[in-house]
Parts: sequence; structure tokens; C-alpha cells
Amino acid sequence: MVTTDRLPLSPDGLEAALRAIGGERYHDRHPFHHRMRDGLLNRGQIQAWALNRFCYQSAIPRKDAGLIARLDDPALRREWRRRLVDHDGEAGDDGGIARWLVLTDALGLDREMVVSGRAALPATRFAVEAYVRFVAERPVLEAIASSLTELFSPAIIQDRLTGMLANYPFVDRDALAYFDRRLTQAPRDSDFALRHVRDHARTADQQAAVLAALRFKCDVLWALLDALDHAYVRPALPPPGAFRPEPEPC
Amino acid sequence: MVTTDRLPLSPDGLEAALRAIGGERYHDRHPFHHRMRDGLLNRGQIQAWALNRFCYQSAIPRKDAGLIARLDDPALRREWRRRLVDHDGEAGDDGGIARWLVLTDALGLDREMVVSGRAALPATRFAVEAYVRFVAERPVLEAIASSLTELFSPAIIQDRLTGMLANYPFVDRDALAYFDRRLTQAPRDSDFALRHVRDHARTADQQAAVLAALRFKCDVLWALLDALDHAYVRPALPPPGAFRPEPEPC
Repeated sequence: MVTTDRLPLSPDGLEAALRAIGGERYHDRHPFHHRMRDGLLNRGQIQAWALNRFCYQSAIPRKDAGLIARLDDPALRREWRRRLVDHDGEAGDDGGIARWLVLTDALGLDREMVVSGRAALPATRFAVEAYVRFVAERPVLEAIASSLTELFSPAIIQDRLTGMLANYPFVDRDALAYFDRRLTQAPRDSDFALRHVRDHARTADQQAAVLAALRFKCDVLWALLDALDHAYVRPALPPPGAFRPEPEPC
Repeated sequence: MVTTDRLPLSPDGLEAALRAIGGERYHDRHPFHHRMRDGLLNRGQIQAWALNRFCYQSAIPRKDAGLIARLDDPALRREWRRRLVDHDGEAGDDGGIARWLVLTDALGLDREMVVSGRAALPATRFAVEAYVRFVAERPVLEAIASSLTELFSPAIIQDRLTGMLANYPFVDRDALAYFDRRLTQAPRDSDFALRHVRDHARTADQQAAVLAALRFKCDVLWALLDALDHAYVRPALPPPGAFRPEPEPC
């Protein structure tokens, strides 16, 4: 973990510190993801993941609009607007949210139930709304930095594609169209956001803030899998950075 | 569960419906509470509970001020102001938050660490902030209704007092001063809030909204224990109302 007394870093040093946060805290390290990738989940557990993750997916355009609403620079607004197009599409049947519903359809979930969010875990809603608020309210630089989990997403997306196709007979390539598209969208978005953060986070305070923003976002994604793991799979694992009790005396 | 087509109810019917929500969803039904009461937690698990619960306790005056800030009626503001006094006290060493720190001190937790919140679970923060926001942003009637979990709190407080004193040698009566005080404060507060909700929730829409507000608040409290259970104790239990997969075919 980068201690604040080493700040400010060079742009390369800052990028390395951001990437180190991903290495420690990104949800590709979460046991629920490992179980999914390795074919150890059953259909009900994959359903639970897909319908809870829909809450996250469907909130992303609100999150992005909350940032655009505070940008004075048309060029930056246009850049960020691409994310709205990616997720909401041009019509009702394209865009990332529509593609996510292709997955939940393929999993046999009722579309109205999925869209309503009523069967999602409260913890999912709390974490997702915390992210939407963060981006709508924190300084623009931090809001942009919180998107940098996409630096780490190609690997987890590839894991999901490969692992789900290999292991779950109820999932086929068509059901996974969402992920195919994200493999090109995510790097384009994270390249831009990373460049912005490298260029604009120069002081120690700014750098501490963008590092904290990325840790916050990793906490959000981790909390989503914790909630699923707890409700639908299994035991005891404090998230990165949380209190760990001393071993009990014998 | 009350279906909305039975609304509007009489004031007594509404109160019964509110109490029924507590019977289904209040966190006295959560396995983490049962383990605490029954002496099945170890010291580290009690520490984790106390420091995460501090995040909740310490946010309550912000929550209450968010409501007072929107009240036009001085009498209602004065009534609600008592909650600020209860939690923040008249000086630094009285009030509910200070009494909670007496407990965390007794458990051997570093006070600065507890107050900073940095070792708390992200899921705790997300749930607590969801509650603070709810009360600051939803209609006053719903904000007041969300406090009605206090209708159910005397029993859980008594459980904690009795269970903790009987079962945990590292907890004594002085450490539990917070709970002693709440046994009289909570009923006074919930009597007022219940009367307000009975008097003001008359239409079907208002009643549906106050019932939803109480369910929301139960979800917050349940999520706090889910997060603790997941991080520090044990397995798989979807919260009330969440998706439950079909049994796997044999």
C-alpha cells in the first residue's frame, strides 16, 4: 500500500500505485469470482449473480450522467458521453443494459423481476448507490479516478467468458454478448481516464484522493461479491483492509 | 406481508402491519444476533461488531439533523432534537456515542481506530449512508416511519444486555451503559413516531410508503449483521425478501 508520505509521485509512479491497488483489491481476487470461473457455482448462484449485477449495470448511466452534469469542458463531456451510448444504446435493444438482459433471459430469469430490482440484495443496492453518489458529489478528478477499475477488467471479463462457456451448459456465447463488447469498450475508456488522472493529479493531496477513490471503487465491487457470497454460497472472509481480529488465545 | 390492495388500513390496522414487518425482518431474527446472545461469538467477533456498529451509532445525529433540517414545525423539531441530545450529549463524555466508546474501550479497541472508521467494513458504510440519505431526502412521513425499528428495539437490547453479561467475561455492566439508557429512550422516541405515522399516513399511497420505509430500515440493519456474519463468522443466508434460487435438480 502506498503511504501518503511518499506523495507526490511522478505520473508513472502514480500509475504504478493505482495498478498496485488493483492487484490488492480488485474483485478478480474474490472467492465468488474464482468459483464462477472454475465452474463451482450452480445455476441458482449464477442467476443470483446476474440479477444483482443488473442493479449495478443499470445504474452506470446514472453514474456517468452525474459526472457529465458537472463538466464544463465540451470535449470531456463528449468523451464521457460515449459511456452513456455504450450502456443505454441507440434504441431499446442495443447497449450494455439490453445485452445484460439477454444474459438474464438465457438464465431463465423473469425480465420484469430483474428490471424491477426487487429480488436483489439490499447490500447490492446500498453499494451501487454509494458509487452513484460518489461520482455525483466528489471532485471531478476523484470521480474520474473511481472509473479506473476498468484498467483491470479485461482479465476478469476474459475469465468470465472462458470459465462460463467451459463450465456451465446453460450459458452460451450469445448469452455473453455483453462481455464481448466490453473487451473493447473498457480499455478505450480506461485509457482515457488514466491519461486524465496522470495529467491532473499532481499534488500530494490530489494523488492521495485519486488513490482513495480507486480503493473506494474496489470496495464497491468487492462488497457486491461479498453480499452474493454470503447470501448464496459461503463463509467468512473480511474484505481487504477491514478489521481482522487477533487470533484467539488457546 | 401486507399487499397494497388492502390499503388504506385503519390506524390500528396500519400499526399491526408495521409490527408485522418487524416480526419478519427486524434483525433480532438474524443469526449473528442469536450467536451474540447465546455466547457463541469470540472476543474478536464482538470487537468487529462493536467497531462496525460504531459507524452506525455515530451517523445517527447526522441522520436526525437531516430530518430536522426539513421540518417547518417548531414542536416537531424540538421533539426530534431530543435525539440529537441523546446521541451527542451535552459535552464530550455523555451521550450515546460517548457511551458506545466506553464499550469499544472495554473491548480493548483503540479509540482512534474506532472513531476513524477505517477498519469498518465497506458494506457497513454503504448501508449506514443509505439510511442517512433516505432520511435526508425522502418525504418527512417516510423519514419518520424509517425510525420505527425502535418499536422492536427493547427486546433486542434486553437480549444483548442479558446475553453479553452472562456469556462474555470481557464485558461488564459498565461497558453496557449505552444499552441501559436506550431502554428508556427508544420507547419514548418510537411512541412519538408511531403516533405521528398513525395520524398522518391515511391514504393507500402514504401507507404503502411508510411500510416500505420500515422495510428499507430493516434491510439496513440486516445488512449490517450480514456483513459482519460474512466477514467474521459464517455461511449463506439470503436476507428476507431477496432472491432464493430454485432447488437444484438431482
